[in-house]
Amino acid sequence: MQFASDNAGPALPQVMEAMIAANAGHAPSYGAEALMDEVRDRLRTLFEAPRASVYLVATGTAANALALATLSEPWQTVFCTPLAHVHTDECNAPEFFTGGAKLSLVGDGDKMTPDALARAIGGWPSGDVHTPQHGPVSLTQATERGRVYTCDEIAALCGVTRDHGLPTYMDGARFANAAAALGCPPAEMTWRAGIDAVSFGGTKNGCLGVEAVIFFNPENAWEFELRRKRSAHLFSKHRYLSAQMLGYLADDAWRDAAQTANARAARLAEGLRAVPGAGMVHDREVNMIFARLPRATHRRLMAAGAAYALYEGPLDSGPEDEPLMARFVCDWSVGEDEIDRFLEMAAG
Amino acid sequence: MQFASDNAGPALPQVMEAMIAANAGHAPSYGAEALMDEVRDRLRTLFEAPRASVYLVATGTAANALALATLSEPWQTVFCTPLAHVHTDECNAPEFFTGGAKLSLVGDGDKMTPDALARAIGGWPSGDVHTPQHGPVSLTQATERGRVYTCDEIAALCGVTRDHGLPTYMDGARFANAAAALGCPPAEMTWRAGIDAVSFGGTKNGCLGVEAVIFFNPENAWEFELRRKRSAHLFSKHRYLSAQMLGYLADDAWRDAAQTANARAARLAEGLRAVPGAGMVHDREVNMIFARLPRATHRRLMAAGAAYALYEGPLDSGPEDEPLMARFVCDWSVGEDEIDRFLEMAAG
Amino acid sequence: MQFASDNAGPALPQVMEAMIAANAGHAPSYGAEALMDEVRDRLRTLFEAPRASVYLVATGTAANALALATLSEPWQTVFCTPLAHVHTDECNAPEFFTGGAKLSLVGDGDKMTPDALARAIGGWPSGDVHTPQHGPVSLTQATERGRVYTCDEIAALCGVTRDHGLPTYMDGARFANAAAALGCPPAEMTWRAGIDAVSFGGTKNGCLGVEAVIFFNPENAWEFELRRKRSAHLFSKHRYLSAQMLGYLADDAWRDAAQTANARAARLAEGLRAVPGAGMVHDREVNMIFARLPRATHRRLMAAGAAYALYEGPLDSGPEDEPLMARFVCDWSVGEDEIDRFLEMAAG
Amino acid sequence: MQFASDNAGPALPQVMEAMIAANAGHAPSYGAEALMDEVRDRLRTLFEAPRASVYLVATGTAANALALATLSEPWQTVFCTPLAHVHTDECNAPEFFTGGAKLSLVGDGDKMTPDALARAIGGWPSGDVHTPQHGPVSLTQATERGRVYTCDEIAALCGVTRDHGLPTYMDGARFANAAAALGCPPAEMTWRAGIDAVSFGGTKNGCLGVEAVIFFNPENAWEFELRRKRSAHLFSKHRYLSAQMLGYLADDAWRDAAQTANARAARLAEGLRAVPGAGMVHDREVNMIFARLPRATHRRLMAAGAAYALYEGPLDSGPEDEPLMARFVCDWSVGEDEIDRFLEMAAG
Repeated sequence: MQFASDNAGPALPQVMEAMIAANAGHAPSYGAEALMDEVRDRLRTLFEAPRASVYLVATGTAANALALATLSEPWQTVFCTPLAHVHTDECNAPEFFTGGAKLSLVGDGDKMTPDALARAIGGWPSGDVHTPQHGPVSLTQATERGRVYTCDEIAALCGVTRDHGLPTYMDGARFANAAAALGCPPAEMTWRAGIDAVSFGGTKNGCLGVEAVIFFNPENAWEFELRRKRSAHLFSKHRYLSAQMLGYLADDAWRDAAQTANARAARLAEGLRAVPGAGMVHDREVNMIFARLPRATHRRLMAAGAAYALYEGPLDSGPEDEPLMARFVCDWSVGEDEIDRFLEMAAG
Repeated sequence: MQFASDNAGPALPQVMEAMIAANAGHAPSYGAEALMDEVRDRLRTLFEAPRASVYLVATGTAANALALATLSEPWQTVFCTPLAHVHTDECNAPEFFTGGAKLSLVGDGDKMTPDALARAIGGWPSGDVHTPQHGPVSLTQATERGRVYTCDEIAALCGVTRDHGLPTYMDGARFANAAAALGCPPAEMTWRAGIDAVSFGGTKNGCLGVEAVIFFNPENAWEFELRRKRSAHLFSKHRYLSAQMLGYLADDAWRDAAQTANARAARLAEGLRAVPGAGMVHDREVNMIFARLPRATHRRLMAAGAAYALYEGPLDSGPEDEPLMARFVCDWSVGEDEIDRFLEMAAG
Repeated sequence: MQFASDNAGPALPQVMEAMIAANAGHAPSYGAEALMDEVRDRLRTLFEAPRASVYLVATGTAANALALATLSEPWQTVFCTPLAHVHTDECNAPEFFTGGAKLSLVGDGDKMTPDALARAIGGWPSGDVHTPQHGPVSLTQATERGRVYTCDEIAALCGVTRDHGLPTYMDGARFANAAAALGCPPAEMTWRAGIDAVSFGGTKNGCLGVEAVIFFNPENAWEFELRRKRSAHLFSKHRYLSAQMLGYLADDAWRDAAQTANARAARLAEGLRAVPGAGMVHDREVNMIFARLPRATHRRLMAAGAAYALYEGPLDSGPEDEPLMARFVCDWSVGEDEIDRFLEMAAG
Repeated sequence: MQFASDNAGPALPQVMEAMIAANAGHAPSYGAEALMDEVRDRLRTLFEAPRASVYLVATGTAANALALATLSEPWQTVFCTPLAHVHTDECNAPEFFTGGAKLSLVGDGDKMTPDALARAIGGWPSGDVHTPQHGPVSLTQATERGRVYTCDEIAALCGVTRDHGLPTYMDGARFANAAAALGCPPAEMTWRAGIDAVSFGGTKNGCLGVEAVIFFNPENAWEFELRRKRSAHLFSKHRYLSAQMLGYLADDAWRDAAQTANARAARLAEGLRAVPGAGMVHDREVNMIFARLPRATHRRLMAAGAAYALYEGPLDSGPEDEPLMARFVCDWSVGEDEIDRFLEMAAG
């Protein structure tokens, strides 16, 4: 009953096999190996972007911080939601990598609207030396609350940023889950909608630790390479990043894994509706569910070894039937039986 | 005939097996997995340092830059040799991670002497607000030229730094090769000699990408953890770093691999002595050789597919018999037959 | 009719005279001159803090950014209001000087309450490596909207920060105006209420460009000195900063100037009440007024050469009687006749 | 007998008078005052550079660090001599302002030669992601040892930098002394010789604290303005910087003061030749002398209250006739009688 995070799950067999296959003989280091050429080709094809710059790093925070730093200047402000991973969960990595840029918050939830974005940008005057200058916008797809921007929503947001001459970055730590949910091609969800750079996350969806960063404008390439190197994120034995990504891309493994994870979450969400006192915070869209369960139910589940993140508390004191919010994440490896067992136990 | 770098070689079978074994079921993320507890225990035992703080990162540059940043302040200067990796090969990573510290160069080669170190420290006055302040000393063991500090040499250098109240860091990207060469226990080469923090490199010696950073003074622990996180070097699926390190530590695999690599380089060095016109720059000590070969010999070897780094040139023009310096590195996987073939070809 | 800012006014005669007097012969540089000893003594006496560390810098932003950087770590978050100068008007100086700390916003106005502060601090968990860590709190006294924290209010806020083990900084760019308004001794408004460091602003209140930064805990002294030097804010001919501050402190010139400025603003505020369609946004407390006047009135005033900052607009289009917010600041040099002339014109 | 530094001397009467004149009524802040327009015009005329961007800051370190940061990227290396003020006397300000660039040292003294510069640049490969990238070159005119680059020497150095596509900055803290020594127009010594940006120092030559930073390429302007603001070096009451510079420029006061200071140093140098046991380290070129005097002579002079910087020591122990190097600086205000008195005393 493991719903703590999609980064608690194992790697896909295809990914491990690609790693093992890559572990033969000598290979040029630092991304000069042939496998990386293949990765680049495949991702350009997948994104229908033959001139895109493609890089690999090992963590989602590295992808975010490096991409935002490449798209901004230290005297600018990045725009993101108050729940954005880059704001809440990276111990100031964006501030560090950008050399001291500010993060300005858009709206009050996990998804930004064009109006809220325009208001946030307008909150800082343009071209006044005293204030932070306008910098890139960062969207998370799927969001930190498990919701998905439709391609139209993305295009509307990018319309706002383009009106201000700003670049837009998509934090795609759960890109695959969003793409699977929307059933749309990666190009639709990104550059055709106006996205300038995206991270294509592998770690949470069946890799060991690899994220692709893709710039649709190759002008950013060399700066990104320098930033990656000086932040110690250029791997010498880079072939093991490439191999992971190749295993992940082969035969649409990335999409299959995301569909599986999403389907598992759907099963869990459906079951939760029948649990006494349970209520969904949002409708489920990808592989992550936010729901409220009575305190007593949480206690019973946790005692039985269920792993998930409680967002409200405390667990130990308070009315037994008070609903407390929790996050449940399904990765590709969670079994249906495990979900059913969990639901049974939740039902009491 | 692969002598380009020890980061061009494959991972040890034991390391890959540990990775595969670790890829089962769910595990807590971010270093909270049980495997990391085991890594910590083993490294504390290996270093005879039961209270040491132990961390894993994926690149040598991350280990160096994070350790030095933890031991310094932005207004200080780090002391290192002009050939130190932290100075020449990290695209200003130490300057970035420290928030703008300076690197002051000690001596003019790869190995520092106590005298040169004392002169470099004395080159900046103490407690004058105008100058950079004294910061940590960084030694590379084995050095970037393949030489080894004896434990006495290390102790003498640490004596100088201690006299100035400064911490000493050991860049141990090739720690195993040095330890194997000296045949001494890790504790001798580090804290007993006065070292405050060390990186215990795995990447170049048969891992995929993992380095342990060990602080013998646990006071530095929390700051290191924050720095690692905000520089995006804390892995979510950390178990794959732990697994590599466990495979590397089990049954002294790390020492065996280093002994093998050193022995291969010894065979190569011995053979090179018989090559007409060849000359060693330094006596071989670990798995890395610096030697001069006539231009014509280089040309013949490279045409035949030998891979190694030429440090002088150009290859294409100049007297055929002019000796040009090159670096030859043996990793654990280089075969004796490969070496012999290379030597035969070098002999003409 | 100059109400644009208190930094648009001239220096006090006493301050200029002190500058002229200081311009004789040679003097040690970088703060080693005898005048600085006198400054230190006087400020320690004024603040009843014999062990305080006292420094001078030339701009308010330098005072704020250096003090906050000294009190924080790069992985922390500073807490301030959304209208704080450090957030809105320093082009990311705090982010730059701290090495990439975050600013977290407290409440939604210019003055923070203990509840809002506690909520903001509680918004980030304690000791979780993923989130920004708790850092210093920054209060502006008087606030950017011309309001004053009473000593009790300051003590209540410092109680919250102390409960969390955090330091509190007071941005005192208009310290004198607040102290004059409260009629309380500097010690009451600062360390007795729990403030750890304060800027004692001179620039806006009759100096040319000087702010004292005072740390009540002398442990911060050396770090501040290093930060001041490496940010290029240590003046070689420091005597001219010292002289300004001495002229400012002599015979309570600083308090007199603030009282005058406050009184002028009071006269202006009183007069505005009689202006048709005018309304105060806040009750006047110091030398700064926020009021709304009809668009037509603004147009008439500006056409006549009145200088002040319009916060709402546009001026040119919209209903003639629509009230638009503006800021009016009186410095010590604004004449009563000027104010009366302005009011007459405003009345129509 | 004040020869400690040209920053220990007073401001010129013309500069003080301009300050006093500027202290009347209200004026726009942050450089929007009319006086700054006049400064800009005059400096453009003086430098025969009608499109140059012109800014004022209050310290030489601010001028240097801001200019170098504007001309570089964090992953680059600045080139300067080992005696450069930016390397030795700014507590890592260039590293801080650039966001972590490295300083690479050229030659082993205070003046660089084209050969040494080319060697230093060639010491780092071009376009290799692992090494620091080539950044701006920083020359000090006059040097930290009181020597002057001729216009031909500057042009030759700029030829090297231009061959590598790098910008050249001139640290002109003693620009006036150098220009007076060479008797050449500012344009000759700067952009006509290939200089991209220069600081035109006022502080050491009779101002209170003001340096102009001039970019001959106006493309750098806006970035400089943002960097100046976020480093807290944009003065609100900027008129007092402008006034100083205007007083300094009027009637060639800047050149007269420098000529006076140079002439005083010439008198001192000439006199020192007659002092028993004295020897010049360099021929005098501007207002700064490096000479060796016997230990006993130093002791006698210092006991009599002479102020200057001893570079070798210790003063208290060692042979009485051992020559110890010292620096003697004359500012415009040092009297001839004072010099003669000093020489008399030195003679014994």
